[in-house]
Amino acid sequence: MISRITIFGTGLLGTSVGLALRVAGFRGSIVGWNRGAEGAHTALAAGAIDAIAADPLQAARESQVVLLAVPIYATLDYMEKLSGVLGSEHLITDVGSTKAQITAAAGRLFNTPERAAFLPGHPMAGKERGGAALGDANLFRGAVWLFTDVTTWERSPASLKLVEGWREWVEAMGSRTLDLDAQRHDELVAWVSHLPQFLATALSALLEEEVGAAPELKNVGGRALREMTRLGASPYSMWRDIAATNTEAVQAALHALEQRLAHLRESLRTPALRDEFDQANRFRREESAEVVNKTPHSDVNSAA
Amino acid sequence: MISRITIFGTGLLGTSVGLALRVAGFRGSIVGWNRGAEGAHTALAAGAIDAIAADPLQAARESQVVLLAVPIYATLDYMEKLSGVLGSEHLITDVGSTKAQITAAAGRLFNTPERAAFLPGHPMAGKERGGAALGDANLFRGAVWLFTDVTTWERSPASLKLVEGWREWVEAMGSRTLDLDAQRHDELVAWVSHLPQFLATALSALLEEEVGAAPELKNVGGRALREMTRLGASPYSMWRDIAATNTEAVQAALHALEQRLAHLRESLRTPALRDEFDQANRFRREESAEVVNKTPHSDVNSAA
Repeated sequence: MISRITIFGTGLLGTSVGLALRVAGFRGSIVGWNRGAEGAHTALAAGAIDAIAADPLQAARESQVVLLAVPIYATLDYMEKLSGVLGSEHLITDVGSTKAQITAAAGRLFNTPERAAFLPGHPMAGKERGGAALGDANLFRGAVWLFTDVTTWERSPASLKLVEGWREWVEAMGSRTLDLDAQRHDELVAWVSHLPQFLATALSALLEEEVGAAPELKNVGGRALREMTRLGASPYSMWRDIAATNTEAVQAALHALEQRLAHLRESLRTPALRDEFDQANRFRREESAEVVNKTPHSDVNSAA
Repeated sequence: MISRITIFGTGLLGTSVGLALRVAGFRGSIVGWNRGAEGAHTALAAGAIDAIAADPLQAARESQVVLLAVPIYATLDYMEKLSGVLGSEHLITDVGSTKAQITAAAGRLFNTPERAAFLPGHPMAGKERGGAALGDANLFRGAVWLFTDVTTWERSPASLKLVEGWREWVEAMGSRTLDLDAQRHDELVAWVSHLPQFLATALSALLEEEVGAAPELKNVGGRALREMTRLGASPYSMWRDIAATNTEAVQAALHALEQRLAHLRESLRTPALRDEFDQANRFRREESAEVVNKTPHSDVNSAA
């Protein structure tokens, strides 16, 4: 039913969606556009897109589905631009990591019977480095793809079908879908995604200061240290918009962790240390059972 | 030259040493002793040891090398006991994660020409769960095996040869050796090993409180969250002695991280956030180059 998709932004996520759609059996055309020409050409050479759009808004108009796979503020900018050129026969969806502002804009600019539909989405998949060259058809396999759709939006019959069609392709790419309220989404990902990232950044920056000058000592840590600091390689450009659009929830999570660390620091020689380990063990015990069946394929592919 | 080894403690590390010695070509006999009979039988069945000692002190006397692979306070206890029964034809070595107290005891109880040699050791390898059943011949491959030997100790010629022999077996098991002052060792591992562990424990305990009641939300986090909390599965029993014997250095590291997190929390919407990401990127950039060639085999084997 969906026969033409335009992907805005052929970075890691945009390129991976193109590749994953092909592996899942999508036979329509995929047009790509990217701010930097090199990323577009890499995605084209990899087979993630069939063509590079000369004019992205024109390409969007000629597609049924537009996927915005650009940073959050760029997504908000494109939403404004696209609202003037698309109509009730179009669906726009995105992959932005925070959803409150994007979902609010989607309600303001789209999602009436006369306008295009906008389905706010967020695949919980990524790597610590971006770019089309790292695009991976298996990136979304075993991942959760969150949506913050709003049930009170009234859409045209044509765009409603596109929404259903896109959800089916997301599942065909190997993801489980989960619907959440946008505010709740941003609070949840502050804990399970943004806190781990900012923590890895702080830990890596601190260790660079403490042992960075002695490479032979840095490499003493082994696997545990590599895992805890892997996300330290994430670039500022990938996280700036997230920090700016989910500030309060991230601050609350960071503050809670600071307090937890202080408590543990004061408990190193007391029975409270056992309680803290037991509580941590509970988090991993239940999770481990799930993970055995659900470890995504992409775990094996990405960098150490 | 070394033809008989007794391993005290056939947990994860003791069993792995037995297996790794065999893979490395050790043809002498390996006797094991374990507080719990089940662990000893598991190690025996896996081929990590040839026999279970009936009397550990007697087995030690009949060996050239005794490996203490038990928690730190148990190691200190055995050092006292063994000092009464072993002599200048023996070497004792250990795998304890903190070295200041053990190295001080080694100087007090051993390492004269009339006494046994004690070589304080610490392989930087492990898993978040212990036990003989997880023993792994490749655990030490690509790891750094630290020693906190003291150059002023005067040893018998026989025990000196055993020290050299043991160092060669450590390298044959696939580890690089690195010698450090014991105090410096404890400060270094506070940063690169103990801080990551206590951080993962605090993060896991916090997340159990925040999202533990909703398993469908816990699993949203994906690979990054799993990595950052993997060590949350580590049991208190493995870390109690470490917390108690390296308290000040661990407290200093935790306190520094708390301050770093607070700084990052206050920088989420300022240019200082870029500096923090850049500093973190530097830590990973240099490490990545090393890791490409040195990722230990055991990374692939252990749990997700």
